[in-house]
Amino acid sequence: MELGIIGLGRMGGNMAERLRRGGHTVVGYDRNPDLSDVGSLEELVERLTPPRAVWVMVPAGQPTHDTIHRLGEVLQSGDIVVDGGNSHYVDDQRHGTELGEKGIGFLDCGVSGGVWGLENGYALMVGGDDEHVKRLMPIFETLKPEGEYGFVHAGRIGAGHFVKMVHNGIEYAMMQAFGEGYELIEASDIVTNVPETFRSWQEGTVIRSWLLDLMNRALADDPHLDEIRGYAQDSGEGRWTVQAAVDHAVPLPAITASLYARFASRQQDSPAMKVVAALRNQFGGHAVESAKGADSPGADVTPPAV
Amino acid sequence: MELGIIGLGRMGGNMAERLRRGGHTVVGYDRNPDLSDVGSLEELVERLTPPRAVWVMVPAGQPTHDTIHRLGEVLQSGDIVVDGGNSHYVDDQRHGTELGEKGIGFLDCGVSGGVWGLENGYALMVGGDDEHVKRLMPIFETLKPEGEYGFVHAGRIGAGHFVKMVHNGIEYAMMQAFGEGYELIEASDIVTNVPETFRSWQEGTVIRSWLLDLMNRALADDPHLDEIRGYAQDSGEGRWTVQAAVDHAVPLPAITASLYARFASRQQDSPAMKVVAALRNQFGGHAVESAKGADSPGADVTPPAV
Amino acid sequence: MELGIIGLGRMGGNMAERLRRGGHTVVGYDRNPDLSDVGSLEELVERLTPPRAVWVMVPAGQPTHDTIHRLGEVLQSGDIVVDGGNSHYVDDQRHGTELGEKGIGFLDCGVSGGVWGLENGYALMVGGDDEHVKRLMPIFETLKPEGEYGFVHAGRIGAGHFVKMVHNGIEYAMMQAFGEGYELIEASDIVTNVPETFRSWQEGTVIRSWLLDLMNRALADDPHLDEIRGYAQDSGEGRWTVQAAVDHAVPLPAITASLYARFASRQQDSPAMKVVAALRNQFGGHAVESAKGADSPGADVTPPAV
Amino acid sequence: MELGIIGLGRMGGNMAERLRRGGHTVVGYDRNPDLSDVGSLEELVERLTPPRAVWVMVPAGQPTHDTIHRLGEVLQSGDIVVDGGNSHYVDDQRHGTELGEKGIGFLDCGVSGGVWGLENGYALMVGGDDEHVKRLMPIFETLKPEGEYGFVHAGRIGAGHFVKMVHNGIEYAMMQAFGEGYELIEASDIVTNVPETFRSWQEGTVIRSWLLDLMNRALADDPHLDEIRGYAQDSGEGRWTVQAAVDHAVPLPAITASLYARFASRQQDSPAMKVVAALRNQFGGHAVESAKGADSPGADVTPPAV
Repeated sequence: MELGIIGLGRMGGNMAERLRRGGHTVVGYDRNPDLSDVGSLEELVERLTPPRAVWVMVPAGQPTHDTIHRLGEVLQSGDIVVDGGNSHYVDDQRHGTELGEKGIGFLDCGVSGGVWGLENGYALMVGGDDEHVKRLMPIFETLKPEGEYGFVHAGRIGAGHFVKMVHNGIEYAMMQAFGEGYELIEASDIVTNVPETFRSWQEGTVIRSWLLDLMNRALADDPHLDEIRGYAQDSGEGRWTVQAAVDHAVPLPAITASLYARFASRQQDSPAMKVVAALRNQFGGHAVESAKGADSPGADVTPPAV
Repeated sequence: MELGIIGLGRMGGNMAERLRRGGHTVVGYDRNPDLSDVGSLEELVERLTPPRAVWVMVPAGQPTHDTIHRLGEVLQSGDIVVDGGNSHYVDDQRHGTELGEKGIGFLDCGVSGGVWGLENGYALMVGGDDEHVKRLMPIFETLKPEGEYGFVHAGRIGAGHFVKMVHNGIEYAMMQAFGEGYELIEASDIVTNVPETFRSWQEGTVIRSWLLDLMNRALADDPHLDEIRGYAQDSGEGRWTVQAAVDHAVPLPAITASLYARFASRQQDSPAMKVVAALRNQFGGHAVESAKGADSPGADVTPPAV
Repeated sequence: MELGIIGLGRMGGNMAERLRRGGHTVVGYDRNPDLSDVGSLEELVERLTPPRAVWVMVPAGQPTHDTIHRLGEVLQSGDIVVDGGNSHYVDDQRHGTELGEKGIGFLDCGVSGGVWGLENGYALMVGGDDEHVKRLMPIFETLKPEGEYGFVHAGRIGAGHFVKMVHNGIEYAMMQAFGEGYELIEASDIVTNVPETFRSWQEGTVIRSWLLDLMNRALADDPHLDEIRGYAQDSGEGRWTVQAAVDHAVPLPAITASLYARFASRQQDSPAMKVVAALRNQFGGHAVESAKGADSPGADVTPPAV
Repeated sequence: MELGIIGLGRMGGNMAERLRRGGHTVVGYDRNPDLSDVGSLEELVERLTPPRAVWVMVPAGQPTHDTIHRLGEVLQSGDIVVDGGNSHYVDDQRHGTELGEKGIGFLDCGVSGGVWGLENGYALMVGGDDEHVKRLMPIFETLKPEGEYGFVHAGRIGAGHFVKMVHNGIEYAMMQAFGEGYELIEASDIVTNVPETFRSWQEGTVIRSWLLDLMNRALADDPHLDEIRGYAQDSGEGRWTVQAAVDHAVPLPAITASLYARFASRQQDSPAMKVVAALRNQFGGHAVESAKGADSPGADVTPPAV
C-alpha cells in the first residue's frame, strides 16, 4: 500500500527501505533535502492518494508535537497518522484527540529493533481503534519480523507507547541484572574465567536471552570491559516507566534501582554521600579528606563504637 | 566412562538416564532402595574401577556434608568426587580440603536445566583443578547441551557453585523485571490486551529470552494469573548472592530488591509498615484501624500538613 | 497585622487561633458557615485593609487552583497571597505567574507541625520575593516555633513547597528506617525486650529523634503493634519527591524504597510476584497453589537445581 | 564497684574516666604500656577482688576472640566478662558458651556515644542473664546518660550486640535519607538557601533529630560540602544488619540501599555500568568512549527507537 513517512534518519530510513523491499510505495519527507523524496509536507500529502496513511518517525517531544499539529492542518478527514517515535503515552492521548476532532485517525506505535530491524524486522506495539489498526495492517505485516510474534494491538490510544515504555523498563532491569552479576563475579578471586562463564550460559540456562548474546559479543572484543567506562545514559522511557509506576502506585524496585544506577554512573561525586561522610565525621570523629577522600580510622586499639 | 551417582531423585535420576543414553556406565545409589542400584556406599565403591569418579547429587547442607565426609572414608587416593548439588561455594573449599588431604580430587559443579535437562542437556559450571576437570570431561560432554555452549571450567574449587549462584541471582532480577513490567501494564486502563503484548515480545525485541517464553506459556493457561497467588519461595542461591555481595562490597540493588520482594510476598502483614502506620497516626492524627487497616483522612477541609 | 485565612479546618483553624493569640487580626473564610467569619470571599476582601494579605489553607490541587484563581479576580494590585497548603511546587510557579500579571504578590509556604503546631509552633518554609516575605514576616514570626529555628526563606517561588516536599521524602525514609529496624528485631529470637529497647534509644544514641519519641509513644500503648495493620497511605509529597528526583536525574534509593513499601502495603496480592511464582513453576516444576499459594518443593531427595 | 577494663583507646579510656569520676575503682590493661595500669592480664586479674568483673573494649573479631579466650584461662568461676566492643552477635553466643563451661558469666554490651560519651554518657544495650546484668548494674548506671533512657537489657546473650547492630542499620538509612534530601535540594534551581533550609528544620518539623543537628554543624563550616568527598566507609554493623535480614528473611530495602550507596561511593568505576554501557552500544549503536565515556546519540533526526 501507499505510505508517507516523515523522518528518514537511521530508524525511519531503514523502515522505509524494509517497506519498499516488501512492495509498498513509500513517499518520504525529511528536513534534510538529501534524504527527502519531496520538498514539503504539503507535497507529501499531494503525492498520496486519500484516504492517506502517514507515519511520523521524528524525535519525541516538540518535533513530534509540531509534526502532528501540522499534519492536522494538511491532512483530511479519513486519513490516518501513525506516531512511530518514542513519544510519551500521555502525549498520544492529546494527539489523538486533536486529530480526532478533524476526523483524522491516530495510532501510536512503539517500535523495537534498532540497527538490526532492517534485516530482522521490527517488534511493533500499537494503540488505537480496531478500524485504524486494520487499515495499517499491510504495513505492520511488512515491518514486523517473520513468524507469529512481533506485533500486538495492545489497546487504546497510548497503549502502544505505554507497553513499549514498559518493555524498556524491563530491559533496564535485565541489563542491570547482567551488570550486577558480572560485577560480583569479577570481584571473586576464585573465578578465573569470567568471559568463558558468560559465554557458556548461552545454552541450557534459565537466563539465556538476546541480551546475554549481546553481552558475549561485547566480552569477545574486550574480555574485562577495560575499554569501556561505566557510564550510562538513560532514555526517556526509563524515567517515564518510574513516573507511571508512581502515578499508578505500583512498586517497581528493580526497574527503579536500574534507572538510579544510571543516574549515579554519571556523577563525578555524590552529594548524598558527602552528607554521609560529613555526618560520620561529626559523630564519630571519622577522618574525612578532601583530596583523597579516604576515611582512615587509624590504628586505635578500640573500635569506633558509635 | 564409569561413574557412581549418589542421589537419584528428579535431578540425579534424569542425569543418570542421560549419561546411560550417552553410553556411560552409571552405578547409582539412593537411600530409597527402589531407586538404588546398590545397597550401600561401600557397595557403590566396590562396583567402580579405580581411579573412581563419584557424582554427589543430594540436597545442599548437611546431606552433602555427610555424603562427602563418608566418601572420604571409603574412597581411595586418586579418586574424584564431584558435588553437583546446590552447595554454598564456601562449603566447597572445606570439602576440597578435606578430600585433598586424602589424595582424593574434588570438583564442584553448578547444574542448570531443571525438568528440561534430560532432553536438552544441562548447563554445567565447574570449579577445581585442570587435571580433575580433564578426567571428567567425557561425563560433562554428555550432560551438557549440544553445541558450543553450556559448559565452563570457571576457576578454582568453589568457582562452579559461585557462578551458578550468581546465575541464579541474575535470574531473580530477570524474573522480577518481568513481574514488575507485568504489574505496571495490568495497572494501566489503556492496555487491554496484556497476554497478547507479552506474547508479541518473543520476536524482535531487546527482552526476548527463555524466561519470556516461559512467561507466555504461563499466560497461555491463565491470561491474568488469576489462579496463582503472588507468593514466592527463595532458594539458598538468592540469599547467598546477596551475602557474597556484602562480603565483597559489591552493590547489587536490583538483585537484592528481587530477593526482598520474595520475602515480602510471604508476609501476611508487614511489621515495618505497622511502624509506619503507627508513626503516621502519632504525628498526623491519621486514622488507623485494626480490622480494616484503612487510613481514612476524612473530609477535613484542610490538608494533613505535616 | 491583618490577615485573611481561607480554609479553617484542622490546620487552618489552629493557625488562625495561634495568630489571634499572637495579637493579629484574622478574618477567616470557610465554605462551612459554622467555621467562617464571613459569608463569601468578596466579604473577606472587603473586611481587609489594602494592601491585603490572604493565606490559602485548602487542599492541594483543584481546590487550591480554584481559590487562587478567584482571589486573582477579587484582590487588587499590591495585595499578597500565601499558599500554605501542600501544593506541588510546579503549580506554585503557575499561580505566581497568574497573580503576578495582576500585580498581586505570591508566596508559597510549606507548613509542618500537624496537631502539635498550635502549642509548639509550625515550621515554615517559604518561597518567593524578598519584598513579599518581608511584608509577611510578622505572621511568620507568630506561627513559627520560639527560638532561632523553624523558619526559612528557601528561595524563589516554589522553593517553599519544594523543600517541604523533600522534608517529607526524608521523613518517609526515616520512618521506613525505624520500621525496618523494628521488623528485624522482632524477627530475632534472642531479643526479648523490644519496646524497652526502642525506649532506651531516646538518650545517648545516634538515632535519637522526634520520630523515635513518637514511636515510643505508640509502643507504650501497644508494645508489639498488634492492634495496627501494616497498611500505610502515602501523601502527594512522597510521590512528588520521587518524580522530582527522576526529573533531576538524582538517585534516591532509600526514599523511593520507602514509597514503594507503602504501595506494597496496600496490595492484597502482588501481580509481580504472581509472575515470579508462575515462572518458578514453569522452569522448576515448583508447586503453585491457588488457595494456599504455598510452594511445596516436596520431599525429593535431590535439590531443585535450576 | 571494682572493674577491670581491657583496651584503653579512645572509647575504653573515656569509659574508664567516666567510671572513675562516678566513684568506681577501675583497673585498666592495654597492650600500650603508657596507657596501662598493669603489666599483664594476669596482673589485672590479681588486682581485682573475686567475684570479678572485666570489661573487654578491644576491636571486634580476632582481638576480642583472643582476649576472651585468655580471660577464660585466667578468671575463675563466678567472675563475669562484659564484651563492650562491636562484636558480631553470633560470636557472642560462642563466647558465652566457652566462658559458661567454666562457670564464668558473660554479657554482651553494645555501646553508643562516640566522642560525646564521656560527658553525656553512653547508650548501653545489654544481652545476657538477669543475674549477671544485676551484678553489673552499678557500672551501667554510671556509664549511661542521666535520665530514664539510655540503658536496656535487651534479651539473651547476643541481644545487646544485635540491637546495637540494628541501631546502626537504622542510622545508615537515616543518614542516607538526609543525604538524598540534600542532593535533591541542591539539584533544584529554585532553592537558593540550602544550608538555611536544613538549619530551619531543627525546630517544629517531623525530621528533627540529633543527626540533623550534626548535619547543621557540618553545613555551618562548609555550606555546600565543597571540602568533603562523597566517599563513605562502612562498619561491620551495616553489613551484619543486611546479613541478619537475609538470614531472617526480613526485607530491608532502605537500609540495604544505604549500605550499597556506601559501597558505590568507593568505586572509581562501576563494573556493572560497564556492562550496561556495553549492551547499549551493542543493541542500539549508542556511542561508547573509553576516554570520555560520554554517550553521544548524535544529531540523528530519528530517535534511538530500541
